[in-house]
Amino acid sequence: MSKKKAIRRFDLSKPFNPEDIKGLTENELNQLAEDIRANIISNCAKNGGHLASSLGVVELTIALHHYFDLPKDKVIFDVGHQCYAHKILSGRSLENLRQENGVSGFQRRSESEFDPYEAGHSSTSIGAAMGFATARDLNKENYNVIAVIGDSSLANGVAYEALNNLGTFEHKVILIINDNNRSIGKSVGHSSNMWEKFRLGKGYLKRKERYRRVMKKTKFGRGIYKVTSAIKNFFKYLFIRKNTFYNMGLYYISHIDGHDIKALEKAFKYAVNAPSSVVIHVSTIKGKGYELAEKDNIGDWHGVNPFDIKTGEPLKKLDPNYISWSEVYANLVDTYMQKDEKMVVINPATVIGSHLCHVFDQYPERTFDVGISEEHAAIFASGMAVNGLHPYVSAYSTFLQRAYDEMSHDIARMDTNVTLLVDRVGLPGSDGETHEGIFDVAYLNTIPNIAICMAKDQQEASELFSFSSSYEHPLAIRYPRGKTLRQEEKEPASIKLGEWRLENKGDDTVIITYGPVTNEVVERFNKHTVVNALFQKPIDVELLKTLLSKKRIVIYDIYGTEEGFASIVKEELNKLSYKGLVKSLCVPSSFIKHGNIDSQIKSLNISLEDLQNLL
Amino acid sequence: MSKKKAIRRFDLSKPFNPEDIKGLTENELNQLAEDIRANIISNCAKNGGHLASSLGVVELTIALHHYFDLPKDKVIFDVGHQCYAHKILSGRSLENLRQENGVSGFQRRSESEFDPYEAGHSSTSIGAAMGFATARDLNKENYNVIAVIGDSSLANGVAYEALNNLGTFEHKVILIINDNNRSIGKSVGHSSNMWEKFRLGKGYLKRKERYRRVMKKTKFGRGIYKVTSAIKNFFKYLFIRKNTFYNMGLYYISHIDGHDIKALEKAFKYAVNAPSSVVIHVSTIKGKGYELAEKDNIGDWHGVNPFDIKTGEPLKKLDPNYISWSEVYANLVDTYMQKDEKMVVINPATVIGSHLCHVFDQYPERTFDVGISEEHAAIFASGMAVNGLHPYVSAYSTFLQRAYDEMSHDIARMDTNVTLLVDRVGLPGSDGETHEGIFDVAYLNTIPNIAICMAKDQQEASELFSFSSSYEHPLAIRYPRGKTLRQEEKEPASIKLGEWRLENKGDDTVIITYGPVTNEVVERFNKHTVVNALFQKPIDVELLKTLLSKKRIVIYDIYGTEEGFASIVKEELNKLSYKGLVKSLCVPSSFIKHGNIDSQIKSLNISLEDLQNLL
Repeated sequence: MSKKKAIRRFDLSKPFNPEDIKGLTENELNQLAEDIRANIISNCAKNGGHLASSLGVVELTIALHHYFDLPKDKVIFDVGHQCYAHKILSGRSLENLRQENGVSGFQRRSESEFDPYEAGHSSTSIGAAMGFATARDLNKENYNVIAVIGDSSLANGVAYEALNNLGTFEHKVILIINDNNRSIGKSVGHSSNMWEKFRLGKGYLKRKERYRRVMKKTKFGRGIYKVTSAIKNFFKYLFIRKNTFYNMGLYYISHIDGHDIKALEKAFKYAVNAPSSVVIHVSTIKGKGYELAEKDNIGDWHGVNPFDIKTGEPLKKLDPNYISWSEVYANLVDTYMQKDEKMVVINPATVIGSHLCHVFDQYPERTFDVGISEEHAAIFASGMAVNGLHPYVSAYSTFLQRAYDEMSHDIARMDTNVTLLVDRVGLPGSDGETHEGIFDVAYLNTIPNIAICMAKDQQEASELFSFSSSYEHPLAIRYPRGKTLRQEEKEPASIKLGEWRLENKGDDTVIITYGPVTNEVVERFNKHTVVNALFQKPIDVELLKTLLSKKRIVIYDIYGTEEGFASIVKEELNKLSYKGLVKSLCVPSSFIKHGNIDSQIKSLNISLEDLQNLL
Repeated sequence: MSKKKAIRRFDLSKPFNPEDIKGLTENELNQLAEDIRANIISNCAKNGGHLASSLGVVELTIALHHYFDLPKDKVIFDVGHQCYAHKILSGRSLENLRQENGVSGFQRRSESEFDPYEAGHSSTSIGAAMGFATARDLNKENYNVIAVIGDSSLANGVAYEALNNLGTFEHKVILIINDNNRSIGKSVGHSSNMWEKFRLGKGYLKRKERYRRVMKKTKFGRGIYKVTSAIKNFFKYLFIRKNTFYNMGLYYISHIDGHDIKALEKAFKYAVNAPSSVVIHVSTIKGKGYELAEKDNIGDWHGVNPFDIKTGEPLKKLDPNYISWSEVYANLVDTYMQKDEKMVVINPATVIGSHLCHVFDQYPERTFDVGISEEHAAIFASGMAVNGLHPYVSAYSTFLQRAYDEMSHDIARMDTNVTLLVDRVGLPGSDGETHEGIFDVAYLNTIPNIAICMAKDQQEASELFSFSSSYEHPLAIRYPRGKTLRQEEKEPASIKLGEWRLENKGDDTVIITYGPVTNEVVERFNKHTVVNALFQKPIDVELLKTLLSKKRIVIYDIYGTEEGFASIVKEELNKLSYKGLVKSLCVPSSFIKHGNIDSQIKSLNISLEDLQNLL
């Protein structure tokens, strides 16, 4: 007891004073780490969030705050979803994490001066840090710029572009690579000596081949292999061959235990004193301090919904009458993979989120998790498409925009039969500004040759999927977050490209809408004419022509911006010389703060009440 | 003479029969190389084209055609601008290269079965080849897939994403890295032994530091440094450390003389027999066979206009009364770099094309050639912008779309004061489908917060630039290929965000247009009302309101698609309840074949005559 008494502790239910960390002893810092961990676990259990990655960097974050002079020194967390300890130490409470009036789940400049940059998409931290360092030197200021990036984020091309430039870069940055040791490399061997031994012989290649074969023989092995194989192989070896960094003119410090605050600070000291940029390679345990997350080899604990801390079970179970949209499409993918041996699936590191694990386990030869590489995914798919396969690229709407050029240059220009499964369309919910799925129709519409569609329910989803299976051009099938009512399996009705459906024959006011909100619109506005525009592009000109005598046409789109679907319809109405009134109610083209989707709909004035008021 | 007689030669003014290469002796192949080279030089001298890169790979291409079984085996040339010898050997004539009825300057599937994939943007060949190899194996076919990629193209992230995936990839590809030895690495030392020696000490870092200092002392040194430093440092070292490839499970063959057909074929043989993917590292001399191109350290001979073979002088000199648009903006950049020490310029490998060499030489501290890394350019810029600098990112319209996500996520979302200098806006001319500058307003319009503008002449350019210098949000300044009349320098008039100018007060027909075509419109349609929409976004709602009583409004845009500027104006007219007729004449959203810009305008029906017919 007596020893314990001397340790200063903090009540983390109150805002932490950032200056208080400076005077703490090593023991006190370790105690603080424990307390922060407990706080993160309880707040994620309550609010959901990125649990495992935040638990992994608690000591690293404490060391950064203790050693460096924040906020004068700048710490940029890549993606930002691992910054919960950073939020606490800079005086922010996780009490309402990701909720409407709580802190964001990412770094956010408007939230704190301790957040110098912000992200949500991965792999931007190195380039941003280089920008900071350049500005610092040109402005003749003096502070440290530190980027903290996970090994998975290094799989993305933009991280590499930055690293590639770092070789001749004259402005010093400190780059901390947070390696959570989950890659396949560990199993094969992780000491640099071993690599030295094998470097010139063919023994290594054979070993690797054998390992692949063994891993693929068991279903368990397959699952593990798929989840881990796509990630970061290249850099895995690069770290081991630290000479690469030396040769680039960078100092490289490796083998730092990311849970040892003293060791971390020693490395920081060396880094600060080094004359040029430094890479510090830190090993951490993802999920550390919460057993279920520590043991998780798949990634289930990366991002979580509210859960029971003791059992790990989710607090809210999905009503068995409902099914998540991701699952609806994952099941369809499964069904069609059985039917069509030319079908292949490519996914950039969201296999779990899009519920595709089962498919990836079942069809190891025809499924490809390419890591956080949306651009490569698109090109790779197009390469397969021109050779007789039918690739389905599954990606979140917000991340798919990384492949804008490749969707144009490689898929649309050559008009290849690539189907895009665009998950998480619509408002961003608790992820906020960086995770919006509202821009996809707008940006896909700027590219020739891509058809775009979205189902209102499970049955329509099955019809669209059936359509996609024989469609020979680029097609985007969109679906939102959340759930939909389970429907009994029926044979999918056949659907024509661009087909719309007249859901309700009503009066002189036409509401054109699409997606899951359609049924609510039909129900509420049953005296009006309601059209279900299940294709957002091309649109159903024939059906539109039958509406030209109507007094007014209102386009209602809660899944996209004005520049998307609404503008396509308005353009056509103009071409058809429609004389009536045209109005639209769409998601405003803006960056929308985190919160609940329903309240986002309200605060953006795009609810059914707002539609009512417009009529 | 007697020996010479035995050598079989070909008249390359006639189509080459692809099968004829098979029986040739080594001497005959070398003679063929000479003849092809002469043919490429004379046709580029006549038509313009990518001279230096095509000259560099003549022997490599001959070896590929001689050794492999084309078109059954597939050769994918990265970018494709080095494929002139390939075109000749597959039976195509360069007689009308890049002209309306001649062959394209890139690989093109519709042109020949010897072109299995196509590109125009860099760094896609590895991912595409992986797609080919997967399809081959799943389809149970048997052929070789070969990607040929230059070292500069390896600087782009998507090449790296593909390489990163290659480490666990089970479908064999042969990757030929064409290293033209122009990187800074050569000067520092290029033997792997040297790197071994230095790998653990700090001596290397010091040497490098000293080299940098020396290079920066002389203006000459600065110039060279800038042009070469941005490129491929990372991979430069990677090649030397060939273990990296071994460790990835790839076979690696290095030190192949790319002008030695026999050595190349030996390497091919090894590659074909290897059990997994192989990287062949080939050294070539860019521009080989044309002395001026061989000696060119800057890159002037990479892409050329028609020239006199003897002197190297361009055949058509620019009328001194005119100045190229790139130069107009380069001069403005120069002027404002002098005035504003917070201004910095970032360019992704188009410094020469955008006439920025002088600026890069003058301001080495504040200019950054990041190589073919558009995405990194955007993030790097935003990092500087949040720290008080004013970054100008200069890029071609067609390549800028690679940074779509970063312009949204890093620039627009944080609303940073990054100015985009968007060069080569509009129709693609002789480059064709892969180089269109017609989509930028459409895609930038889907992103919140970005203002977009374009000048009609040099004076307006100077006004827009002056506006940009104090504007604190994202701004895109667009300018086309080609030239504009030189104007005397006047003090730039001050301009307001979104301002339009009424160029001609005329009758009830309004033509809204912008850019260099404005003056021609005013001249030809002087009885109509003509508006110069120098901001394409936001638009001048106040001016638009004064036009609501007019009978019809026609939007004329030869620099962008319907989904861009026209749709923004139409949306506003709808909001303003405009009752008149709205029409638009824009570039159709499509991929436009190479040819002369004037004839592209005619064949797309967007000429002034077409505008006349519409009225």
